[in-house]
Amino acid sequence: MPLKTRDEYLDGLRRLGHRVFIQGEAVEDVVDHPVSRPAVLAMAETYQGAAESETKALFTTTSHLTGAPINRFAHIQHGTGDLVQKILMLREMGRRTASCFQRCAGLDCLNTLYAVTFEIDRRHATEYHARFVAYLRQIQEGDLIPAACMTDPKGDRSLSPAEQRDRDQYLRVVERRADGIVVRGAKLHITGAINSHELLVVPTRALREDEKDYAVAFAVPATARGVTFVHGRQPSDTRRLESGRADVGNVYFGGCEALVVFDDVFVPEKRVFMCGESDMAGRLVECFAAHHRASYGGCKVGVGDVLIGATAAVAEAQGIDKAAHVRDKLAEMVHLNETMHGVALASALKGTPTASGAYEVDPLLANVCKLNVTRLPFEIARLAQDIAGGILVTMPSLADRDHRQVGEYVKKYFAGKDDGASDLRMRLVRLIENITLGPGAASYLTESVHGAGSPQAQKIMIGRLADLGPKKACALRLCGAR
Amino acid sequence: MPLKTRDEYLDGLRRLGHRVFIQGEAVEDVVDHPVSRPAVLAMAETYQGAAESETKALFTTTSHLTGAPINRFAHIQHGTGDLVQKILMLREMGRRTASCFQRCAGLDCLNTLYAVTFEIDRRHATEYHARFVAYLRQIQEGDLIPAACMTDPKGDRSLSPAEQRDRDQYLRVVERRADGIVVRGAKLHITGAINSHELLVVPTRALREDEKDYAVAFAVPATARGVTFVHGRQPSDTRRLESGRADVGNVYFGGCEALVVFDDVFVPEKRVFMCGESDMAGRLVECFAAHHRASYGGCKVGVGDVLIGATAAVAEAQGIDKAAHVRDKLAEMVHLNETMHGVALASALKGTPTASGAYEVDPLLANVCKLNVTRLPFEIARLAQDIAGGILVTMPSLADRDHRQVGEYVKKYFAGKDDGASDLRMRLVRLIENITLGPGAASYLTESVHGAGSPQAQKIMIGRLADLGPKKACALRLCGAR
Amino acid sequence: MPLKTRDEYLDGLRRLGHRVFIQGEAVEDVVDHPVSRPAVLAMAETYQGAAESETKALFTTTSHLTGAPINRFAHIQHGTGDLVQKILMLREMGRRTASCFQRCAGLDCLNTLYAVTFEIDRRHATEYHARFVAYLRQIQEGDLIPAACMTDPKGDRSLSPAEQRDRDQYLRVVERRADGIVVRGAKLHITGAINSHELLVVPTRALREDEKDYAVAFAVPATARGVTFVHGRQPSDTRRLESGRADVGNVYFGGCEALVVFDDVFVPEKRVFMCGESDMAGRLVECFAAHHRASYGGCKVGVGDVLIGATAAVAEAQGIDKAAHVRDKLAEMVHLNETMHGVALASALKGTPTASGAYEVDPLLANVCKLNVTRLPFEIARLAQDIAGGILVTMPSLADRDHRQVGEYVKKYFAGKDDGASDLRMRLVRLIENITLGPGAASYLTESVHGAGSPQAQKIMIGRLADLGPKKACALRLCGAR
Amino acid sequence: MPLKTRDEYLDGLRRLGHRVFIQGEAVEDVVDHPVSRPAVLAMAETYQGAAESETKALFTTTSHLTGAPINRFAHIQHGTGDLVQKILMLREMGRRTASCFQRCAGLDCLNTLYAVTFEIDRRHATEYHARFVAYLRQIQEGDLIPAACMTDPKGDRSLSPAEQRDRDQYLRVVERRADGIVVRGAKLHITGAINSHELLVVPTRALREDEKDYAVAFAVPATARGVTFVHGRQPSDTRRLESGRADVGNVYFGGCEALVVFDDVFVPEKRVFMCGESDMAGRLVECFAAHHRASYGGCKVGVGDVLIGATAAVAEAQGIDKAAHVRDKLAEMVHLNETMHGVALASALKGTPTASGAYEVDPLLANVCKLNVTRLPFEIARLAQDIAGGILVTMPSLADRDHRQVGEYVKKYFAGKDDGASDLRMRLVRLIENITLGPGAASYLTESVHGAGSPQAQKIMIGRLADLGPKKACALRLCGAR
Repeated sequence: MPLKTRDEYLDGLRRLGHRVFIQGEAVEDVVDHPVSRPAVLAMAETYQGAAESETKALFTTTSHLTGAPINRFAHIQHGTGDLVQKILMLREMGRRTASCFQRCAGLDCLNTLYAVTFEIDRRHATEYHARFVAYLRQIQEGDLIPAACMTDPKGDRSLSPAEQRDRDQYLRVVERRADGIVVRGAKLHITGAINSHELLVVPTRALREDEKDYAVAFAVPATARGVTFVHGRQPSDTRRLESGRADVGNVYFGGCEALVVFDDVFVPEKRVFMCGESDMAGRLVECFAAHHRASYGGCKVGVGDVLIGATAAVAEAQGIDKAAHVRDKLAEMVHLNETMHGVALASALKGTPTASGAYEVDPLLANVCKLNVTRLPFEIARLAQDIAGGILVTMPSLADRDHRQVGEYVKKYFAGKDDGASDLRMRLVRLIENITLGPGAASYLTESVHGAGSPQAQKIMIGRLADLGPKKACALRLCGAR
Repeated sequence: MPLKTRDEYLDGLRRLGHRVFIQGEAVEDVVDHPVSRPAVLAMAETYQGAAESETKALFTTTSHLTGAPINRFAHIQHGTGDLVQKILMLREMGRRTASCFQRCAGLDCLNTLYAVTFEIDRRHATEYHARFVAYLRQIQEGDLIPAACMTDPKGDRSLSPAEQRDRDQYLRVVERRADGIVVRGAKLHITGAINSHELLVVPTRALREDEKDYAVAFAVPATARGVTFVHGRQPSDTRRLESGRADVGNVYFGGCEALVVFDDVFVPEKRVFMCGESDMAGRLVECFAAHHRASYGGCKVGVGDVLIGATAAVAEAQGIDKAAHVRDKLAEMVHLNETMHGVALASALKGTPTASGAYEVDPLLANVCKLNVTRLPFEIARLAQDIAGGILVTMPSLADRDHRQVGEYVKKYFAGKDDGASDLRMRLVRLIENITLGPGAASYLTESVHGAGSPQAQKIMIGRLADLGPKKACALRLCGAR
Repeated sequence: MPLKTRDEYLDGLRRLGHRVFIQGEAVEDVVDHPVSRPAVLAMAETYQGAAESETKALFTTTSHLTGAPINRFAHIQHGTGDLVQKILMLREMGRRTASCFQRCAGLDCLNTLYAVTFEIDRRHATEYHARFVAYLRQIQEGDLIPAACMTDPKGDRSLSPAEQRDRDQYLRVVERRADGIVVRGAKLHITGAINSHELLVVPTRALREDEKDYAVAFAVPATARGVTFVHGRQPSDTRRLESGRADVGNVYFGGCEALVVFDDVFVPEKRVFMCGESDMAGRLVECFAAHHRASYGGCKVGVGDVLIGATAAVAEAQGIDKAAHVRDKLAEMVHLNETMHGVALASALKGTPTASGAYEVDPLLANVCKLNVTRLPFEIARLAQDIAGGILVTMPSLADRDHRQVGEYVKKYFAGKDDGASDLRMRLVRLIENITLGPGAASYLTESVHGAGSPQAQKIMIGRLADLGPKKACALRLCGAR
Repeated sequence: MPLKTRDEYLDGLRRLGHRVFIQGEAVEDVVDHPVSRPAVLAMAETYQGAAESETKALFTTTSHLTGAPINRFAHIQHGTGDLVQKILMLREMGRRTASCFQRCAGLDCLNTLYAVTFEIDRRHATEYHARFVAYLRQIQEGDLIPAACMTDPKGDRSLSPAEQRDRDQYLRVVERRADGIVVRGAKLHITGAINSHELLVVPTRALREDEKDYAVAFAVPATARGVTFVHGRQPSDTRRLESGRADVGNVYFGGCEALVVFDDVFVPEKRVFMCGESDMAGRLVECFAAHHRASYGGCKVGVGDVLIGATAAVAEAQGIDKAAHVRDKLAEMVHLNETMHGVALASALKGTPTASGAYEVDPLLANVCKLNVTRLPFEIARLAQDIAGGILVTMPSLADRDHRQVGEYVKKYFAGKDDGASDLRMRLVRLIENITLGPGAASYLTESVHGAGSPQAQKIMIGRLADLGPKKACALRLCGAR
């Protein structure tokens, strides 16, 4: 049964039984809770895309392990074509949901562990790769979602893991047993945490020789004893509680992140994929970072498509779509959006095989892609706000449109170009608000800065990967110094 | 009694009795309603500033009409020093409230009408100026707040007022009586509308000869028959309804805008300041725009101060304040913030007297100031988010900190650099969220784009004021063509 | 003999006998004239690259016409791999020469005419494609260089070709004979004009029905009767006349453009590839533009590599290479440089076949690539100047280093980090001057703005290719309007 | 005789007799040497401005020492009005010359030494201020120009002065005599060095306790024994040698910098203004930096005016001045230009008195002004090139216009909108080339980056002056933490 349906996913999630808190309340069913439901539905679209005829070819592929059809979100990429298809699938998901749909971090983590467990084994004569392949087969066959858990709380960031006063500020092994290990710590802003089946945990940074306890990678089910999820807040999140819910802007979808606490969680040996090989933590992080930084040139570009579309539509509704400066700004938005996408595609095109046979993207271009993503959506959002107008933050509630006493006023004075168009115009404006100032902005803006590592992380990697030597050699030759 | 106290303002507002709707509900008392209260409190700070010893000199001055001490928010500026002091007062208000405090549009409108009624009289032999001076005296003596009402709904923006299908899309005179006029229409995104005493209404654009009905300026009390206020939504506005309210970020203050409907409102003759002089509408708009565009180099810079302060404090709480890239980004934020302020001050320094004796700012520099304000806060906000980190949009509720089951986890894993500092750190992060993605962003970002006219309006004015002739003459001489 | 050597090219060019003027002087031998020699040498590197073992695979390929090995600069691309290889070859040429090497416009024009003559034939039942294939075979077999001649003088740019007072402001057919046509007009800023064997002339814009005379494409040899070349000036061009020539910065290479006048030039029928099909001029221009705009993400990126290398080397020579801000700026330069390259590669990756079988790049991404090229090199240049320091424009001549009276002063005070390093440092600084303010800047900056069409041309194309419909549909669905 | 005429200045300079080398040649008369003449003429305009009736009020003022009329370029500013007038005068000079006119660094240095010698005396009980006042009186009475000499070669920039292998890399006292001191070292990129009467030498950085030898400030005449000037190169400098000289673009003016070598130069005691007070070097540098960084918001803005004027004029000549994107770009250029100016004016407006009574500008705003100057001219230049078109770097020589064989071609095909307008258009294009890629760019671009300190110096000062404490306090209060 490799391909699960959207409804099977939703039903399974309802019965999952993991320990979730949302704004101080224990939540039984994350599917129907109004705050988490949009994130669940966004994730569910990854199943839906695999089922619909127009997108099936993009969302499914063949397992290199079993030869069976699988969801591409569980696929180990084995060529630059695979890397390209992933980017295109992520853009399509962004267009469908205008949200973080949360399944790509797990995908990128699967690909990372596939490559890196192989490399650890070669260097340390361990057996992680076979374990991981067995685990991967389980994921593919069950069409399961593993949430990638990477970022630690970090405590005092000027100190390394072993230097922290509270040593739990980085997740670590606190006990080694014959049949497995016990881990303690927490992972922050875990995307899709509360609506995934599995947690796939990896280190968050390069580690020193004396930090072996922190060099740990493993998987546990979301229901593992000792695991607690605390859902994070997003701008305007409580609009989801309003009846009607139209003011939420994006009426179906959203993203979510959570704090995931590991309070002395036992991990059986077969689910441990790294344990003590601190020399390989840096490699693992960089491999994941490259994959995931390229991903942002897919998903955020898809969200950008929606934002551009909403902005173009609202320009029409206001009668300004022919104005030269509006056309110029729309073209600029497209320009910036495609710039991110182009570099992501290039990172895939220049992908190379790892020792395991799995492909990884060109790390320099992947970092360049992501550094653009930390900047350009802010400019796109600014231009969207420019065109949408001040009503973005001054418009009454959509509910007011039907109000006995003021409904007629609202309809009349928010009609825009066409009488009777107030509903369309107001909804579009709310969608733009969602993406630029609301729950969508959590994903489109802030996550674009910090997801897959902050700008400074990309700057450092670009500096390291820049290969200045040959560039200097060219310069020395041309100026006659050599 | 020219100087009202903060409490007198609040008490008076409670009893005002105007017709206000907030999210589909008729509201009796805007002071205690949790959604509107922050805006009321921000406005109230303009009275408080005039009362406190350290700020009294900045917030008060002497009426040129009566010689009595008045709040500077009701003062007609009579020198470049006055213009400069206004900018400095607005910055101080921004620092106090990190919000739109709503009283400057009225101030700028008073100054505009003072100058322009004088000029209309000179051209049309009318008597508006004397009427307006009488009105102004009332405002100064009562220490009252008039909300400036300028922006019309505009309907199809590719059409001028007279071309609209629904002629009410621009507010207009629908009846002329012996004792006054009757007006119909609406004004959009009126800042401080629901917590002002008066409405000061002016046209929104230059008008043609055949658009005399739209060339109307007047004042009515907020309680005038036929006037209805519909409060606008802002990002995360409903967090104000939560008990505790800590997640709102800015625990005291906020801004507000409203739709103000004029459903056949009668205006007595003595409160009419322009009626039919369509040739002067453009001058009025440009005069107001210059004053108000310069204002943005005060208020938004003050909000920027708070955002920079919050970002610097959160950097310390996370142990990253010594990192070179963090210091560089903080310096960049200061640089951008002061750039806006510097140009605003320069527009005041180069201010000139109008025929009425009141001063107006240099219009070119005022427009340059505002065009920078439509851009630079977005970059400052991006840098703030960069330094604050992903927790900006993934952090649990502050209420979770005290939760029986998860409180300890939250305290432990959001402590940052110091054990026990989680409360401080989380509050700072919520404040940054407020200013960059929450209700504060409505003011700091979107209003920075659209308030006092959209970027394109500034571009057009800069093009018109650029005085290219002498520049071309310099060029022709230097290249030897002349 | 499809592969010519560098020396064969130089020898042939010496004897070519075309009519060339450089700064008011008729020039017999463009190879040895100090002003034109660097451009000749840069072009010659396209032959050299095909001969050297390390680059042969990149610079040569197999003719799809003859199966013989040819220079890739004469190849019709028949797959996305071909498109990608072209971009990589152009980057390599940029690294070798830090100049415009002038052969890519001809290449892009060959590919355009191959595709478009096929399409004209299909629509107009003409026979241009076969003629063009015969011509192409000649180019490939002779390893000849055709200079693409596109841009007309345009006269009053607010008027279309047929509206000009001087109808010659756009090149046109002035006579149709049995055996061919006679053309009159001029082409501006023709890259590599004076050191190419052939001129390949095409229209510069979409044309109206009544502008058939302007719808003309053809080839003539550089020696055709009536053809005159007037070489253009570049910043610091006369430094090439100085003995020593070290102050030129780039000691070997440069670019060149020329005015090419067609004073009633006869073109035999077999060399006419379009004549009167005004409906196809727009298609031809857009096809060329897409190819050529993508090219800029190769060549300018290669020049950027040299500039980055020179900057890194000079930072070392000054002892500032470890400073955090210098490392950050170098990483930023790499980031911007790779952004351009990534989008170019993506335009190749998403290339599609034309009806002729030849491939063309994705036009949206090609335009996005070029629009970035009109901006980012200016920022890279600014950062290079920032790191290089003020000596860029205040440093004495390199010749002063050996001067009897002041040589020791210069050596001592420009040594930088290491005694005796003044020569290296001064040469590097001159190279940076060359690329950012000298002859190299003509190519790296100004040509980056205008080559292959000005920014506004890209903006218009991006607006046209943006495909807003599906984007709007996504938005309407997500906001609940559909 | 406090006010010298332009001609008196030129005559005096011819007879000065200092030791100058230009490109390896000893030069007797810098007034008539074609390379240095434009710089001399630009400097001479500071005298001319004081003589012309329209500008006399701006260029002259009253000496606070003698009460006599003096050139404002020798004035000690004693109020914010003086600070403002200086900025306005510099802008006017920029408009007159489109060049660095070289006299402001000396002016800023005079004001600095006036303030700082007073402060040194107070701390160290020295007598520098009286000496300096005597010197200043001489400058004012003779209407003399002192060139400020600040920047040392610096050798290995990762090392402080005392750590350098070659200790002469920072200018220092090598001998202390009864009647004065002997100094050795060099100063780099000294603006106006070869055409000033005096050299005013100051340290280039804060110094440590053990670096007293470097803490030296003094004045010597340009003719002092041991002083040698080596003129620096600029882009396209040798176009000045061409007959006709039209291709130089700016037909009259230019700037210049030089290496000034002090080879054991004796300074009599009365001309020593600091000697050993290393604790005050930092204060001196910061005071000068603030004055001079504000100056850039005058002079470069004036050059920007000319560039904008040339661009607007060439747009007309090409028939594109009505195009929406051209108008938008011109408005953007004005916007950026006025942004720099506004912040400079604000730094003057917020100026404060030093202990000496002389005023200094607000240092935060002065640094913000300069940091903008390191960026915005590059964007203005890019936009100018965008509008001017590719002919900027492909156009034949202006001399070709009159050439017997090709003159008619050039006239016809560079006519632009109007027949016969080719001369005007070509000259304008050459002027734009001059300012963005030629000798003018040395001043408008590179010097904008590095003059008065590099961007990083401004970043550091902004960080230091940012006053984060009160900003943090605002934030803590508003988020409820205090």
